[in-house]
Amino acid sequence: MELLQQKIIDEGVVYPGKVLKVGSFLNHQIDVPFMSTLAQEFYRLYQGETVTKILTVETSGIAVAYPVAERFGVPLLFGKKSKSANLADNCYRASVVSYTHGNTYEVIIEKQFLKESDRVLLIDDFLANGCALEGLIALCEQAGAKIVGAGIVIEKAFQEGGGKIRGRGIRVESLARIADMDEKEGISFL
Amino acid sequence: MELLQQKIIDEGVVYPGKVLKVGSFLNHQIDVPFMSTLAQEFYRLYQGETVTKILTVETSGIAVAYPVAERFGVPLLFGKKSKSANLADNCYRASVVSYTHGNTYEVIIEKQFLKESDRVLLIDDFLANGCALEGLIALCEQAGAKIVGAGIVIEKAFQEGGGKIRGRGIRVESLARIADMDEKEGISFL
Repeated sequence: MELLQQKIIDEGVVYPGKVLKVGSFLNHQIDVPFMSTLAQEFYRLYQGETVTKILTVETSGIAVAYPVAERFGVPLLFGKKSKSANLADNCYRASVVSYTHGNTYEVIIEKQFLKESDRVLLIDDFLANGCALEGLIALCEQAGAKIVGAGIVIEKAFQEGGGKIRGRGIRVESLARIADMDEKEGISFL
Repeated sequence: MELLQQKIIDEGVVYPGKVLKVGSFLNHQIDVPFMSTLAQEFYRLYQGETVTKILTVETSGIAVAYPVAERFGVPLLFGKKSKSANLADNCYRASVVSYTHGNTYEVIIEKQFLKESDRVLLIDDFLANGCALEGLIALCEQAGAKIVGAGIVIEKAFQEGGGKIRGRGIRVESLARIADMDEKEGISFL
C-alpha cells in the first residue's frame, strides 16, 4: 500500500537495533482518517470471507482494529496482557515472549466472548517475530474458532514472524512489508 | 443516557467491593455500533467547543475515544502507562495511583504531540477516584494546553473523583452516573 509506505517514510523514525517509531499516526497519536483508509484496505482484502469477530491485543492494536470491526459490522475483542499467571478457568490464555520489553506475559480473553462458531480476523499494528500473533492464534485454537486470516499494518519482513505464520497455512496480509531498515540508510520495502 | 443505563443493567455484572464488569461491550469485547452512539452523545455535549485533540489513557479508553476523535475530526492521543520512572526529557509524565491494581504507574505522552495551542477533550471509560483523569489533566497542564472538559462513559458517583475534578472548575460529562451498587441489590443511577 503505497500511501502507507509514504507515510512511514515521511513520519517514521528508525532507531538503532531496527526499531521503527510511528508514534505520530499509529501507536501513540492516532491519525483517525488514515486508520479508516487502512481499515478499508483490510476490508477489501477480506471481504470475500465471512468474519464474525475482530481479535487484537492491547494496546496499539485497538485503534487499528476498531475501524476494521466497524467496517465488517462485527464486535471487536482484545486480548488483555497479564503479568501474573492467571488461573481463572473462565479465560483462555497464552504465553507471549516480548522481545521489545524483554519479558514474558500472558494474553487472556474470557471464554464467553470467543466461540467455536466464530470466524476470526486477527488485526495488529506490527508483525516482527510473530510472538504476539501466535498468542492470538493459540487463543482461537483453544476456543475452536476458525481463523480467517491476519491483517497487519507493518510487517518487518526481515524477521521470521511472517514466514512462520504463513508456513502454518494462515493467510497474512501486511499493508507494508519492510525489507530492511537502518537509521542511516532509511527504510526499504518489499 | 437511558440507553446506556439499560445496557449496564442488562450486561453489567456487579462483584463484591462495588466492582462493575462491563466486558461484553466496553472494556474487553467492544460493541462498536454502541460506541458510535456514545460518541455521538459526547459530540452533542461538546460540539459548541473548539476541540483540537482527544486525549485518553490506555487501554480501555482507546475504543471509547476513537469514535469521538472520528466525530470531531481531530487526532486521538493516548497516554502510555509506564511502570518505570521514565526519564526521557521528550515526555510529559504524571504519577497515577491505581486502586484497582494496587500499584502506582506513570502516564506519559511525548511532548511533540501536545501543544499550548491544543484544546483538549479528555475521554475515559470509567471515573471513580479520579486518579487517571487527574493524570491526564496534569499532562495537559505541563503542555499548557487548554482542557475543554472530560467525557466519561460510567461515573461511580459514590466515589470522590467526579466531585474533586468538577471542584477544580473542569467540566465533566458522564453518560451514566451510578449512585450506588451492590451484588445483591443491583445498580441505581443518579
